[in-house]
Amino acid sequence: MFGSYRHIRHRLIPVGSVALLVAWLGGCAPGADPYDESKMEFKSPAAVVSDTPHTGPVLSGDALSIVPSVEAVGKDGVKTIQIDVVNRVIEIAHGVNFNAWTFGGVVPGPIVHARVGDRIRFSMTNRSNDSLPGKPSFGMPMMHSMDFHAAMVSPQDKYRSIAPGQTISFEFRLNYPGVFMYHCGTPMILEHIASGMYGMLIAEPRGGFPTKVDREYAIVQSEFYTKLDPAKRTVDGKPLYVLDTDKVRTKASTYTVFNGVYNGMVDHPLPAKPGERVRLYVLNVGPSNTSSFHVVGTIFDRVWIDGNPDNQFRGMQTVLLPSSGSAIVEFRVPESGKYVMVDHHFANASQGAIGVIDATDGAAELPSEPLEHHNIQATASPTDPEALQGQTLFDTRCLACHTIGKGSTIGPDLRGVTARRDERWLKSWLRSPEKMLATDDTAKALLVRYKVPMPNQELSDQDIERLLKYLRWAGSHPAPAGADTVAAGHEH
Amino acid sequence: MFGSYRHIRHRLIPVGSVALLVAWLGGCAPGADPYDESKMEFKSPAAVVSDTPHTGPVLSGDALSIVPSVEAVGKDGVKTIQIDVVNRVIEIAHGVNFNAWTFGGVVPGPIVHARVGDRIRFSMTNRSNDSLPGKPSFGMPMMHSMDFHAAMVSPQDKYRSIAPGQTISFEFRLNYPGVFMYHCGTPMILEHIASGMYGMLIAEPRGGFPTKVDREYAIVQSEFYTKLDPAKRTVDGKPLYVLDTDKVRTKASTYTVFNGVYNGMVDHPLPAKPGERVRLYVLNVGPSNTSSFHVVGTIFDRVWIDGNPDNQFRGMQTVLLPSSGSAIVEFRVPESGKYVMVDHHFANASQGAIGVIDATDGAAELPSEPLEHHNIQATASPTDPEALQGQTLFDTRCLACHTIGKGSTIGPDLRGVTARRDERWLKSWLRSPEKMLATDDTAKALLVRYKVPMPNQELSDQDIERLLKYLRWAGSHPAPAGADTVAAGHEH
Amino acid sequence: MFGSYRHIRHRLIPVGSVALLVAWLGGCAPGADPYDESKMEFKSPAAVVSDTPHTGPVLSGDALSIVPSVEAVGKDGVKTIQIDVVNRVIEIAHGVNFNAWTFGGVVPGPIVHARVGDRIRFSMTNRSNDSLPGKPSFGMPMMHSMDFHAAMVSPQDKYRSIAPGQTISFEFRLNYPGVFMYHCGTPMILEHIASGMYGMLIAEPRGGFPTKVDREYAIVQSEFYTKLDPAKRTVDGKPLYVLDTDKVRTKASTYTVFNGVYNGMVDHPLPAKPGERVRLYVLNVGPSNTSSFHVVGTIFDRVWIDGNPDNQFRGMQTVLLPSSGSAIVEFRVPESGKYVMVDHHFANASQGAIGVIDATDGAAELPSEPLEHHNIQATASPTDPEALQGQTLFDTRCLACHTIGKGSTIGPDLRGVTARRDERWLKSWLRSPEKMLATDDTAKALLVRYKVPMPNQELSDQDIERLLKYLRWAGSHPAPAGADTVAAGHEH
Repeated sequence: MFGSYRHIRHRLIPVGSVALLVAWLGGCAPGADPYDESKMEFKSPAAVVSDTPHTGPVLSGDALSIVPSVEAVGKDGVKTIQIDVVNRVIEIAHGVNFNAWTFGGVVPGPIVHARVGDRIRFSMTNRSNDSLPGKPSFGMPMMHSMDFHAAMVSPQDKYRSIAPGQTISFEFRLNYPGVFMYHCGTPMILEHIASGMYGMLIAEPRGGFPTKVDREYAIVQSEFYTKLDPAKRTVDGKPLYVLDTDKVRTKASTYTVFNGVYNGMVDHPLPAKPGERVRLYVLNVGPSNTSSFHVVGTIFDRVWIDGNPDNQFRGMQTVLLPSSGSAIVEFRVPESGKYVMVDHHFANASQGAIGVIDATDGAAELPSEPLEHHNIQATASPTDPEALQGQTLFDTRCLACHTIGKGSTIGPDLRGVTARRDERWLKSWLRSPEKMLATDDTAKALLVRYKVPMPNQELSDQDIERLLKYLRWAGSHPAPAGADTVAAGHEH
Repeated sequence: MFGSYRHIRHRLIPVGSVALLVAWLGGCAPGADPYDESKMEFKSPAAVVSDTPHTGPVLSGDALSIVPSVEAVGKDGVKTIQIDVVNRVIEIAHGVNFNAWTFGGVVPGPIVHARVGDRIRFSMTNRSNDSLPGKPSFGMPMMHSMDFHAAMVSPQDKYRSIAPGQTISFEFRLNYPGVFMYHCGTPMILEHIASGMYGMLIAEPRGGFPTKVDREYAIVQSEFYTKLDPAKRTVDGKPLYVLDTDKVRTKASTYTVFNGVYNGMVDHPLPAKPGERVRLYVLNVGPSNTSSFHVVGTIFDRVWIDGNPDNQFRGMQTVLLPSSGSAIVEFRVPESGKYVMVDHHFANASQGAIGVIDATDGAAELPSEPLEHHNIQATASPTDPEALQGQTLFDTRCLACHTIGKGSTIGPDLRGVTARRDERWLKSWLRSPEKMLATDDTAKALLVRYKVPMPNQELSDQDIERLLKYLRWAGSHPAPAGADTVAAGHEH
Repeated sequence: MFGSYRHIRHRLIPVGSVALLVAWLGGCAPGADPYDESKMEFKSPAAVVSDTPHTGPVLSGDALSIVPSVEAVGKDGVKTIQIDVVNRVIEIAHGVNFNAWTFGGVVPGPIVHARVGDRIRFSMTNRSNDSLPGKPSFGMPMMHSMDFHAAMVSPQDKYRSIAPGQTISFEFRLNYPGVFMYHCGTPMILEHIASGMYGMLIAEPRGGFPTKVDREYAIVQSEFYTKLDPAKRTVDGKPLYVLDTDKVRTKASTYTVFNGVYNGMVDHPLPAKPGERVRLYVLNVGPSNTSSFHVVGTIFDRVWIDGNPDNQFRGMQTVLLPSSGSAIVEFRVPESGKYVMVDHHFANASQGAIGVIDATDGAAELPSEPLEHHNIQATASPTDPEALQGQTLFDTRCLACHTIGKGSTIGPDLRGVTARRDERWLKSWLRSPEKMLATDDTAKALLVRYKVPMPNQELSDQDIERLLKYLRWAGSHPAPAGADTVAAGHEH
């Protein structure tokens, strides 16, 4: 309502009468209150639970799409959707195969896109005793359920848990506009959410959004809490990761990601063009931490808290989202470039909450710099604990000047450095580069070539051992999937 | 002011003149600015500290009520209240007797309900050298004080610390509407808040709230940081818990609760009726974490940040509250059912931040499902560390299908299962149910009866030992107080 | 825009025509939309990177000031600023010398103050291979960069990293009003921010802020994650502290501070006068935690989220800020007194996020109480772990009644107590004061003098050893710098 008021000035309607002014104030004729409860629905038919499993595709319905895509909302007024529960191993990060419980085989679950006043006809079979053809899975049949934050219904009726093989069907009408979470509501809910059971429902205002945009994407932020499977199961020869039930209770996430994948939208950026207006539907799932959502290089022209245009902020750098909170953010892409989305709680960004909006229009006009304005680790993570500590050292002390497999920048590309150089030389170099620069010919040649002297990083002997262990590991492991895509156009 | 504007459309007043429109815009006659400083009070009489202790009831004053009740606000314009400090052992969760410091013997302290413009005449005796008759208490005389967030006064004067036996009296006028925290402000404040010294003051707008509701309740969220008393003191034979000063500094809460009790409003739900409009006054005390307050099954029609109708959001699924932040949320109860209030930071919900609004109108019309849409543990927690780990296993792997003492659901009620079944049988069953189902007659009979086959939960031998330890403990301990109430109407 | 609307009622303009009303609604003539994109700039000249280092002062430009000062914004429309990167050891807390990376040798970096429409001409030399004359520093040459949240530019172009000795120059126009963060954007960004590379840029609305205030100050909140330098380097004979890269990834901060210093604005309070209206520009840097910003003893009349008057809240007790989020808060100082600013996430306050606004007008009229309404530890922290645990015991059990070196209050000043009293007497006294009060003459004399009996604090023998270790340490260490200032006027 007052959101409509806020927008009227931008339409710059000439004003000549009180009547028009009143229409202005309301954004529409008096009486068309968007919160008029007589147009809402508070009573819906009882849910139906049957023992007949659905056996077709685990996802169906025109209103569904897969992140980051947001399909145009249909006009029929009824959205019939089928979202089945199925177990599946998903790859959160390179080599981290996680035993997930999913809505429709994807994490996050499908986007549901509809409009206020639409009726959602929902059906779900608990196929946790089943798996997706051709996808790795470890059976874990158990109770599941569905809780739509967009619905106003009795939780005991609609959100009740169903057993493997059972099907629940219910319907509800969308009363409020917004970007809503859905999730499994079966106890322990914390574990069900942390295992992958969540998604986004977009309810557009009755008359659509008050602004026009050139692009729109959905971003779902969530946390993972992983540990190596104590039962030592494997997936295609690689170790399986499972939910760490201790970490999840202490909020000590191992990954915080956008759209289900560590640095996923770095490897597969969202396309845009310079000058375009972009709308992001952003949902923070949690389950337990907040998100400080920010896009580097631009300012949010509008922020609509929980996705409702009436809850509007202007000119925001960052929007804070609770667990199960959302926002629509809109901004102009100022010029050709790559714009990084990030959780500005930077410890979360370091866990993978990074993505890119690529508005380079072909990259030719770009400066020949690597895409570095983000927190991307040089490689995936090794599993050996010593090498893992070496990776932290690398990221902290070396990454500012070196890549691994993405070309030389300030210093040389360190991929294969442990094969290229003698171990004793490397140790001396890491221990006291200033002495080597004074005495060693190879060191001197490096300085001539790269100009910036290697600084002493104050590494202990143990640090050096760990760093070398990591570098050796990195030499024998391919770069993360998509890394070449990211570097494309930058190496030369 | 603009809050008033937001509400006018709902009144649907016919419009015929500019004058009326102006009145509309202001929500009242020009000049009646709710933030007119000439109507506020910025100077108040000096506080009076005396050595005369108050010896009457520890709480008195018509403006006071105990959570979740919110009494009607009186009209006299002066609220005289006495809130004395007294030590008391409170039961945070079943068997967790915590050595609390309190305002008036209750945690949270009493609700203070008044109106903008009202004068609060406050008096407090530090009775930390005393205890409540008939209530367990461990003496810990020390300095205490009172800091009202609703007041605009010199902290050095009004909020100064007083010694045991001393009385402080001061007064102030309410300048702003809102839901305000009060708390002890004596260093280390962190410890005083974490020990239980906080409460809510509601300051209604001068003309009351702009909406009408059928029910209103107060919800105070807070964290506890407990450890077993190193001095091994006991209460009625049970171990005493005290503040864990390490955990409180690292924000590692052991309980996060509504209105002072782990899952308290599950055992004692708040009554409502289908179709009713409910207003909740929600305060997050912290002391150190945020709250993502959410009610399952409905949408907040209005959210007023810090309880001021001018700070309005519409159609919200979740509201994020800082430590010492609040909101008024209003929503319609859509249909008969139980609506669960929860901190959607689900690690917090798992620590007890759960409550129920019961709008079942007698339960007869309810589906015959247990109230499961929440994160309620099956029992209180054992103190033995092995059994405690067993409880985590139970909650993670078993709770979806089994209760302990609340009746059979998907699988059998497991209360007394360690007496009912042979230990060897239980171990085999837990280790490989699929083998037992193929070979063991008891297992086969269970499948016939319950239809869903028990899944293999990938338990190690150590897991099984711990789980059995927990189940044995649960068999010899009564269900939590109120558990029967919750289950009432569900067992059959 | 609607912010303007919100303010119009306070101007109380008599209304007689629709035209005027329309002007009212807009806050200005139709068409003067503050978000009119035709007046914004989305394309800026490419950044220039050169190998010519700047060798003059590390900071220059009229638009710059050092926290908490906010200089008047100039009128020229172009702000030329030079902010060089330089390493420097800063003192976070008494004796905690931290190896920081800085913008201009200060943490936080300088405030940039300008106005929407202004052009910022920025130049920065990476002088991380250099140090400030006369200031302690440990070389750590590495790549650095600058990311202004206030700019709308290509991050790859303007925010690219430059090597030691290089200079980057770019310019941009301020499109939106607000309080924006700037920071180094070189990976790992988390480490660069946590090492001190951040600051605040204030962009006033084109026509200035809609309110008038008597005082304005800038408050930058940030976290430090420190450990003793593993290489055991020292500064003026004291141990050096360096970034703890493990703690920074788990959000386990060691200090949370305002304007770079533990309890810094307690030692150097911000002056104000009773009755004045104060505006604070508050930025939460993080890098990883939220802030619950609160001022004890007053209420925020207005809160403008991210510093934009259109994002307005009224009558707030606390404002929640994300990492890289900000607010302008305005409030009236009600009466003579000291008003404590605090992060009401009290575990953060206990880490140093405390400051004072001193509106005592000379202190003469103050009650003779020490400034205690905050969470200030009695002394700096010892490095010995046993003594450090003793300090925690002191702060938790003793601080409510005793100071160390700030005079006697409820109980005696404990500075030098380990010299004053026999160790055996101290141990007996701490173990069972009630017995001593019954039998020991010194104890009896203390009761006569101080009236309040020393309570039994339930200390174990180990607790007592640790407490005495701390008290011995405190006796041989001077009070923190500025402590006397704080206590001034209170001892007698």
